[in-house]
Amino acid sequence: MTARSPVVVLAPNSFKGSLSAMDAAAAMAAGIRRVWPQAEARLRPMADGGDGTLDAVLSVGGERRAARVAGATGEPVEAPYGLVGSNTAIIESAQVVGLTDARATAQRVERRHTRGLGELISRLLDAGVRKFLVGLGGSSTNDGGAGLLSALGVELLDAAGKPIAPTPAGLASIASVDAHSLDARVPQARFTVLSDVDNPLCGERGATAVFGPQKGVKAESVAEIDSNLARFATLAEAAVGRGAMNRPGAGAAGGLGFALLLIGAEIRSGAEVVADLLGLDAALADADWLITGEGRSDRQTLLGKAPLVAARRAQARGVPATLLSGAIERSDLPELSRIFAGCESIVFGPATIEACIHEAAALIADRAEQLARLFAAAGGGRARP
Amino acid sequence: MTARSPVVVLAPNSFKGSLSAMDAAAAMAAGIRRVWPQAEARLRPMADGGDGTLDAVLSVGGERRAARVAGATGEPVEAPYGLVGSNTAIIESAQVVGLTDARATAQRVERRHTRGLGELISRLLDAGVRKFLVGLGGSSTNDGGAGLLSALGVELLDAAGKPIAPTPAGLASIASVDAHSLDARVPQARFTVLSDVDNPLCGERGATAVFGPQKGVKAESVAEIDSNLARFATLAEAAVGRGAMNRPGAGAAGGLGFALLLIGAEIRSGAEVVADLLGLDAALADADWLITGEGRSDRQTLLGKAPLVAARRAQARGVPATLLSGAIERSDLPELSRIFAGCESIVFGPATIEACIHEAAALIADRAEQLARLFAAAGGGRARP
Repeated sequence: MTARSPVVVLAPNSFKGSLSAMDAAAAMAAGIRRVWPQAEARLRPMADGGDGTLDAVLSVGGERRAARVAGATGEPVEAPYGLVGSNTAIIESAQVVGLTDARATAQRVERRHTRGLGELISRLLDAGVRKFLVGLGGSSTNDGGAGLLSALGVELLDAAGKPIAPTPAGLASIASVDAHSLDARVPQARFTVLSDVDNPLCGERGATAVFGPQKGVKAESVAEIDSNLARFATLAEAAVGRGAMNRPGAGAAGGLGFALLLIGAEIRSGAEVVADLLGLDAALADADWLITGEGRSDRQTLLGKAPLVAARRAQARGVPATLLSGAIERSDLPELSRIFAGCESIVFGPATIEACIHEAAALIADRAEQLARLFAAAGGGRARP
Repeated sequence: MTARSPVVVLAPNSFKGSLSAMDAAAAMAAGIRRVWPQAEARLRPMADGGDGTLDAVLSVGGERRAARVAGATGEPVEAPYGLVGSNTAIIESAQVVGLTDARATAQRVERRHTRGLGELISRLLDAGVRKFLVGLGGSSTNDGGAGLLSALGVELLDAAGKPIAPTPAGLASIASVDAHSLDARVPQARFTVLSDVDNPLCGERGATAVFGPQKGVKAESVAEIDSNLARFATLAEAAVGRGAMNRPGAGAAGGLGFALLLIGAEIRSGAEVVADLLGLDAALADADWLITGEGRSDRQTLLGKAPLVAARRAQARGVPATLLSGAIERSDLPELSRIFAGCESIVFGPATIEACIHEAAALIADRAEQLARLFAAAGGGRARP
């Protein structure tokens, strides 16, 4: 073995409620360097298309911008987005129509829409952007993407031929859809939707039934809204000439998935796209170890979440991948152990959740250090023979 | 590297309040074997001279016996002890005069004594035992070992030449000590005291001042009892012709240390003696990894406790030593990290102390498994080149 400094890739997801993915990666690096002061720590903060995706992607390059567009209720919001390279934009839906926007969610879900996202896309098309990465997740809307389509020129009309509001309430009176005025640049652009949701737009596994209630859809309204969405979608599919409502992911983000599929988007796993954008494979090429993690890990982690994607890519390159999370569901250890070389927690003994959240950065650093001591003692962290 | 099965030495202390050292070692082994089914797990449950010492020593050989002798209040107790080889006995003081004996501690500490330990030694001398390992710690007595000496033939007399009770109360009237009738086999026997306490018998660092209160000595009685012990010890030293009261360890176990030093005992670190009896060095000779642990680890662990001794012996043989405890005091990690290759906790996330104690065995097994996965991924657990 030659004595070179170890290369460690630090690719956690955010620790929800306590640390961004970048802060978590930095804390891991701090701990690692206490053991190997010369270690090359490669910070690759991950995300899976939801909250934190923009930050994660911008951590390795690109430019943060902002645009003033309509929020979920029509009132303007200052929405950050990213520009990567000459003509690629990364958009987080939640930055425009997010569930955490209290001003928007004070309005009933029946009146919220995604028009602002269409406005943002239109603005970016004006600026020459032709590749769009659109992170779904965390949206407060349930309009089937009607707002987005409307802002891009698709006309939604009632029986009298008058434009309707592109909201769940407005869709109740939809009678026809005219796509002739759809922005001509849209078919030439490439849209990639970042989502891990495979629900269709309608039905019992659809957006309204599954995700509606958490956005404020009342149980007694689910059926009606769902049927309005179905009518709108059927008309829109016919007008555009493409099927989308039954495709997996159409039900993501209150049906935004449907609208984006309708205009030709492909859906990809958010974590896979982020890993590509971060150059995770290249970072792993000569690495000795990868540490990933998240606030809480259980078998859901294995459904395409960022730690799984990071670990799979490490495995493919022969790099051991360790999971370091706030908490690990013990009953899921057998499944998790098939993927991760050690499922470890940041805690050092009995502790409250509040203390773990409050001290997360220090705990992550201390635990990463201790794991690195074990890793080094076992012979790891040097050049492989 | 040749592909042989890894050899792992499992040498935890007990997890106080939840698991014996043997149960903890077995849980570690169970976890290890989930990773390396063919691993050779060498169970070496440790102890440091206090509770669990007898069990730890007997785990690798010897015979458990019991004798009926006087407890701390004179009422008989059935005291277990161990026989190792042809003429060596291992005695845990706490099994005769233990603080956990509620019947004894219902009596005031002023009336408790260590006569039963002298009786046990006498009985074992009858049986041919000539080597005694005496674990101190956890005693309820504060008699300066007067009871033990008295049972071995030393006469403790008042001004009228009448025998006194060998108790803190009785010693108030001591006027002379006559050692002529001390059992003649005692000077020929070899006594090894297992203790990590270096307090002298008397004074502000003495047995009464430091350990008396937790045994029920009232604050206002400390000075008087301490001075009675000093008078007794001065007379006893003169009678035997050996100084002992100011030697380190004389103040251990309410002055039992003094009495044993007076009859020629040497004091050794309990954990070191246990490590020797367990053959820890031999177990480590071709080992790949050692895991030790305890209920709670902090800088006190580094004061000669069993995990420290186990780790030092592993280090001396180039074997990495990992600490796996119920809880780790984070502020002491810098010191602990100088010794241990990883200071890990059994918990998997926020948890209560009660849950950790209740599930200790399962948690230890699960955590040992996860650490083994990391250890293996780092290249450990195979024959060293």
